[in-house]
Amino acid sequence: VLDLHSLVDPHADALTSAVLADVLDALGHRTAALPPALRPLRPEWKLFGRARTLCAVAATAEPLHPYAVEMECVDALGPGDVLVATTGGDRGSALWGELLSTAARARGAAGAVIDGLTRDAARVVAMDFPVFAAGFSPLDSKGRLECVSHGEPVRLGDCVVHPGDWVFGDVDGVVVAPQELAAQALRRALEKATGENRVRAELAKGRSLREVFAEYGIL
Amino acid sequence: VLDLHSLVDPHADALTSAVLADVLDALGHRTAALPPALRPLRPEWKLFGRARTLCAVAATAEPLHPYAVEMECVDALGPGDVLVATTGGDRGSALWGELLSTAARARGAAGAVIDGLTRDAARVVAMDFPVFAAGFSPLDSKGRLECVSHGEPVRLGDCVVHPGDWVFGDVDGVVVAPQELAAQALRRALEKATGENRVRAELAKGRSLREVFAEYGIL
Amino acid sequence: VLDLHSLVDPHADALTSAVLADVLDALGHRTAALPPALRPLRPEWKLFGRARTLCAVAATAEPLHPYAVEMECVDALGPGDVLVATTGGDRGSALWGELLSTAARARGAAGAVIDGLTRDAARVVAMDFPVFAAGFSPLDSKGRLECVSHGEPVRLGDCVVHPGDWVFGDVDGVVVAPQELAAQALRRALEKATGENRVRAELAKGRSLREVFAEYGIL
Amino acid sequence: VLDLHSLVDPHADALTSAVLADVLDALGHRTAALPPALRPLRPEWKLFGRARTLCAVAATAEPLHPYAVEMECVDALGPGDVLVATTGGDRGSALWGELLSTAARARGAAGAVIDGLTRDAARVVAMDFPVFAAGFSPLDSKGRLECVSHGEPVRLGDCVVHPGDWVFGDVDGVVVAPQELAAQALRRALEKATGENRVRAELAKGRSLREVFAEYGIL
Amino acid sequence: VLDLHSLVDPHADALTSAVLADVLDALGHRTAALPPALRPLRPEWKLFGRARTLCAVAATAEPLHPYAVEMECVDALGPGDVLVATTGGDRGSALWGELLSTAARARGAAGAVIDGLTRDAARVVAMDFPVFAAGFSPLDSKGRLECVSHGEPVRLGDCVVHPGDWVFGDVDGVVVAPQELAAQALRRALEKATGENRVRAELAKGRSLREVFAEYGIL
Amino acid sequence: VLDLHSLVDPHADALTSAVLADVLDALGHRTAALPPALRPLRPEWKLFGRARTLCAVAATAEPLHPYAVEMECVDALGPGDVLVATTGGDRGSALWGELLSTAARARGAAGAVIDGLTRDAARVVAMDFPVFAAGFSPLDSKGRLECVSHGEPVRLGDCVVHPGDWVFGDVDGVVVAPQELAAQALRRALEKATGENRVRAELAKGRSLREVFAEYGIL
Repeated sequence: VLDLHSLVDPHADALTSAVLADVLDALGHRTAALPPALRPLRPEWKLFGRARTLCAVAATAEPLHPYAVEMECVDALGPGDVLVATTGGDRGSALWGELLSTAARARGAAGAVIDGLTRDAARVVAMDFPVFAAGFSPLDSKGRLECVSHGEPVRLGDCVVHPGDWVFGDVDGVVVAPQELAAQALRRALEKATGENRVRAELAKGRSLREVFAEYGIL
Repeated sequence: VLDLHSLVDPHADALTSAVLADVLDALGHRTAALPPALRPLRPEWKLFGRARTLCAVAATAEPLHPYAVEMECVDALGPGDVLVATTGGDRGSALWGELLSTAARARGAAGAVIDGLTRDAARVVAMDFPVFAAGFSPLDSKGRLECVSHGEPVRLGDCVVHPGDWVFGDVDGVVVAPQELAAQALRRALEKATGENRVRAELAKGRSLREVFAEYGIL
Repeated sequence: VLDLHSLVDPHADALTSAVLADVLDALGHRTAALPPALRPLRPEWKLFGRARTLCAVAATAEPLHPYAVEMECVDALGPGDVLVATTGGDRGSALWGELLSTAARARGAAGAVIDGLTRDAARVVAMDFPVFAAGFSPLDSKGRLECVSHGEPVRLGDCVVHPGDWVFGDVDGVVVAPQELAAQALRRALEKATGENRVRAELAKGRSLREVFAEYGIL
Repeated sequence: VLDLHSLVDPHADALTSAVLADVLDALGHRTAALPPALRPLRPEWKLFGRARTLCAVAATAEPLHPYAVEMECVDALGPGDVLVATTGGDRGSALWGELLSTAARARGAAGAVIDGLTRDAARVVAMDFPVFAAGFSPLDSKGRLECVSHGEPVRLGDCVVHPGDWVFGDVDGVVVAPQELAAQALRRALEKATGENRVRAELAKGRSLREVFAEYGIL
Repeated sequence: VLDLHSLVDPHADALTSAVLADVLDALGHRTAALPPALRPLRPEWKLFGRARTLCAVAATAEPLHPYAVEMECVDALGPGDVLVATTGGDRGSALWGELLSTAARARGAAGAVIDGLTRDAARVVAMDFPVFAAGFSPLDSKGRLECVSHGEPVRLGDCVVHPGDWVFGDVDGVVVAPQELAAQALRRALEKATGENRVRAELAKGRSLREVFAEYGIL
Repeated sequence: VLDLHSLVDPHADALTSAVLADVLDALGHRTAALPPALRPLRPEWKLFGRARTLCAVAATAEPLHPYAVEMECVDALGPGDVLVATTGGDRGSALWGELLSTAARARGAAGAVIDGLTRDAARVVAMDFPVFAAGFSPLDSKGRLECVSHGEPVRLGDCVVHPGDWVFGDVDGVVVAPQELAAQALRRALEKATGENRVRAELAKGRSLREVFAEYGIL
C-alpha cells in the first residue's frame, strides 16, 4: 500500500478539495464528495490522510459495554489516519468529542469526518484537531447511538468510503479519492493548481471568460 | 427559589453544556438538550441563567397592538434571566433583534435562546449579548409572527422548558436543567470536569481508550 | 435608469438589510427577503448593487459547450452589479467559485448571491469578494447544473428578482428592492436608522419597551 | 353575513377546488390554497362550508383541564361549518379523531381541515365525515398539543384563514375564499366550469392546445 | 413468554391502534407509536403479532453473500410474528417485497413493518399480507442496503422495539406494546373501546363535548 | 428507432417496474428509478411508452404568452408517448391537469410523469389516463411555473431521461430504460418474471429462503 503523505502537504496553498474533485471527475469518478452538510469546525482547517471507517445506528438502550466498538476503532488508528464515521442520518446526539479526539491525536491521526454530530467543539478547536461534522450536540452517544462495525466500507450520501482511501478536506467540503486512483489524482491535482494560477491572472486582468476558457480549457 | 448564579460562572473553563448533559443523563433526565439547529451567534459565547419563556405562532395580519406580548415579556425580565422563545417551526421572519436585546440587557438579562430566526446580528454581536437562534432573517416579525403567551412552559423539540429552569449554552448547544435538578446537576457537573481533566491527560500520553475508560469510567 | 450607488455606501454603519426590509414592508412590499439559507461567506460582508440574474437547472450530461451561459452572463457584468443566481433547489454541486469571482470582480461587480452552492471559499474570502450562498461543495457544476437563461427575472423562494432591482446583503440576509421602489426605500431606510439610534439609547437607559415603543413607534 | 350554502352544492360535478383557485387568481387573490400536504382521507370527498378556526402549539405536560379549548371550539360549531385547525408544523400526535368528528357532525358541521395529524381514520371514513389532514397518528394530543385559541384567524402555509371565510376541498386540495370575495368567486367558478366543458370537448376531438387556447383562453 | 394471540383478534372492531396508544399513555409509556410515515399498503389492513427485528444500513457494494442476514431473519420467523425492520432513514431502495412476503407468510408471520421502502406492492396486496412501509421503490436492496443484525432491539423514531414486544397496526399507524406491559395494555384497550361506544352514542345525540367528557372522562 | 410497444403489454401480469429495475441493475445501469415521491394517481395503473420531456422552473410573473412551451410540447406528443416533466423541486402549483391530459390522450399519449404537482385528479382518474406525480395542488401553474424547454434531456433525482427512452410505471414507481438498453432489458425482464413464478411457488410451499435462493439465484 502506497503512502501518499509524502506527496501532499495539505497546508500547501495549491491543493484544494475542489481541484481534487475536478481531477477525479476527469478520471470518471464523479461521486467523490461527501455530503455538503459535513463542515469543518474551523473554516481554516485542511485535512489529509488515509480513511479508517466506523458505522453507527440508532441505539435502543444503555449498552452493557459502552463505547466498545468506537474505542476499538480509535485505539487502532495510526499516524496519518482520518476517521470517517456515519450515523446513517441520526442527528440525536454527538458521536464524536474531545476525549476521542485526544486519543486519536495521540495515535497520530490527522482528523475525523463525522456524518453526524460532534461535541466539545471549543476544546477540539483549541486542540487544532481537524474535525468535520454535520453539526453539534451536547448529548453523549451512550444509549443513543450504537457503533455496529469499524474497518468496513461505509457510504455517506452517494460516496462510498473504503478503508485505505485518501481523504482531503477543506472549507469547501471533503473529497475521497479511492485507493487505486489516489496517487494519480493527487499528482494531477497538484499540477492543475498551476494552470488555475495562470487562468486567474488572465481573468484578473479583465480578459473575458469566453476567451480565457477557450485558451486554457479551465474554469 | 434557589439562585444558582453564585454556583456557576459560565465563563469558567470547567463547565460545558456537554458535561451538564452527561450529568443530567446520569440523573435520568435525557431530554435536556434543545434542538441542534439552535446555535450561538458567536461560537465563543457561553450563556447561563434562569429561563423565562415566550411562545409565538404564525401571524395572520398586522396586529392592532404590535409587539404587545413580547414587550410585556421582555419588560418583565430580571437580572440573570434567559429568554427562551419558540415560533413552533415558523422560519419566515425574525422574532428577535437588537432593540429587544438592548431592552433585555438593560434589565440584566443574560441572553436569549430563540427557536426561530433573529436579525440585527452584527449589532447583537457588537453588544456581546449572547443570542442562540436557528438562523437569520432581515424580516421583522410584525404581521408574520404573533406571540400568544409568555411565562408558560414551552417545548422546543423534545425538551420542555419551564420558567425557572436553568439554561446553560455554549458552542455545543443549549442544555436546560429542570429547576428541581439544577443545583445537584450543576454541582456534579463542576466535579465531573475535574475527572475529565485527568482522563484527557492519560489519553494524551497515548494510553488506550479501553484502558483509560476501564479505569475512570469517563468518556 | 437611476444609479443608486451614490446614495448608499454599504459599509456605512447606518444601513442594514433589516432596516431596508422594514421600509419595504411599510411600502407594502413584504416579499423582499431572499431565503434565510443564503448566507455570506464572511459575516462581516456587506453587499450592495444592481441585480443581474442567472437561472440553472439539473444537468443531464457533460455539455458540448461547457459554461457557455454563465460565461456570457459574467462577461456582461458591469461596475456595481450583483449576480443573483438560482439552481431551483439543486444542491448537488457548486454553481460559483473563485475563477468566476475573479472575472466578475475584474468587471467591477460588487458580489454574487447564489441560491445554490459555491466552492473555492477560502480564495473567495481571501479576495474579499462578497459571495452569499446556501452552502459549499467541492464539485464543479459541469455536467451537474446547466444554466438555462440569464438576464431574465428569477424567483428565489417568495422573492422575485428582476434585472435592475437593487440588492442589499449583510449578516442578516439579502433584501431585494424592486427598481421602482428602490430610491425611495433606500432614502427612508437611511433615515429610519437615525430613529433607531434614539430608541436604542432610551432602551439602554432602562426605559420599558412599552413606553419607548409608544413614544417612537419603532421596534 | 351571507350564507353561500344555497349557492353551492359541493357534490355537483361542476365545481372543483382547481376552478375556484383559478377564479380567485383572476381576482388577484393568489394565496387561496392550503398546503398540498393536507389530503382528504377519501379522495372522493368534497367539502364546502364556513371556516371556524383553532390553533394549537406543542404542549409541555398533561393539562389540568384537558381538551378545554378544542371542546369549546367544537361545541360552538354550527350547521355548514368547517373546522380549520393548525398545529404550526407539529406532527407528533393526532389533533383530530372520531369523537370530535361525531360531536362536530351532531352540530351540523360539514367537515374538518387539520394542518396536523388525525386518528380514528377508519371510523371517520365509515361516518363519511370529510376530514382533510397532513397524516395519521394513533397518539392522542393530550399532553402533546395544546390548543391556544379558537375563533381567531390562523395561517396555514401562505394562506390566512379568517372565521367566516368559505372553504372548498376536494382531491386536489383545499381552497379558502375570503368572505368578501366568496360569493363573486363561487358564482364565477360555477360559470367557468361550463367553459371548461367546451374546451375539453374540443381537445378530445384532437384540436391543438394552441388553437383551442387561442379561441377560449382557458387552460 | 405469554402468547397474546388468544387475547386479541385484530379484525375485531373494538381494538384500534389509537385506543392501545391511549392505554399505554395512561400506563406512562408515551413512545409507543412508530413514525407516522409508516403506512399500510391497504388502509383496511390490521396487523397484530410478536415483534421480530431487522436492522439495515447503507450498503457500499454488491455483497459476496447477498441477502444473507435478511434470509436468516425471515427463515427464522414463526407463526404470529411481525417483522419490524429499519433502514435508519435510507430511502434509496426497497428492503421488502413479494418473495420475502411469500416466505414470511409460509412460516405463519402476520405481517411486516418496514421503516424504509417496499416493492412488489401489487402482489403483496393481492396476497393480503399486511405490510406497513414508508413508501415504494422498484429498486432492489442488493448493493444498496446491508442488513447488519437481526434479533436485536431496534429504534424507529422515538420508539424502541424489542424482539418479543407486541405490535398492533391499522390505518392510524403502528403501536408497539413492550412485552412486560402488553397483556395488561391489550386487556384495558379492549375494555376502553366499550367506553368509547357509549361516548360516541352520547355525542351523536348532540350532547356537548364538555358535558360528555365531564361525565365519562374519555375523548 | 425501434418501437417497443409490440414487445410489451403493460397490462400483462408478468412485467413490473421492479423486475425491469433488476434487469437494468444487472446490465450495470443502477439509476433507472425516478424519485419515490412520484406516485400513480391510481395504484392499479400501469404505464409504458416512449419518453417526451419538459422542464419547468419557478416563474416570476404572469407570462405574455401563457402555456406556450407546454402547449407546444403536448401538441407534439404522438401515439404511445409518455410525457416526463420536472419542476426542479418546486411544489407551489400544479404543472399538469385535466385539459392537458385530454389533449395528450387525443394524440395517443400513454400517460404523464410529473416531478411536481398535478390537479383535476378526479377527472384524470375518471379518464383513466395514467398520471404519476409528486402530489396535488388546486393552483394553476400560470405565473407560478415557467416551462423553459421541451425535447431536451431532463434529470429527476439521480435519473437522466432522454427523449426516446422507454418508461415503465406501476404502483412501485417509475423505471426509465435508456433507449440503447431498452429492447434487451425488456426482453430479459419478461423472462425473469417466469423465474420469479417458480421461486414464489417454492417459497409458498415453505422452503427456506436460503435454499431457494441458493438454487434459483433470485430474490
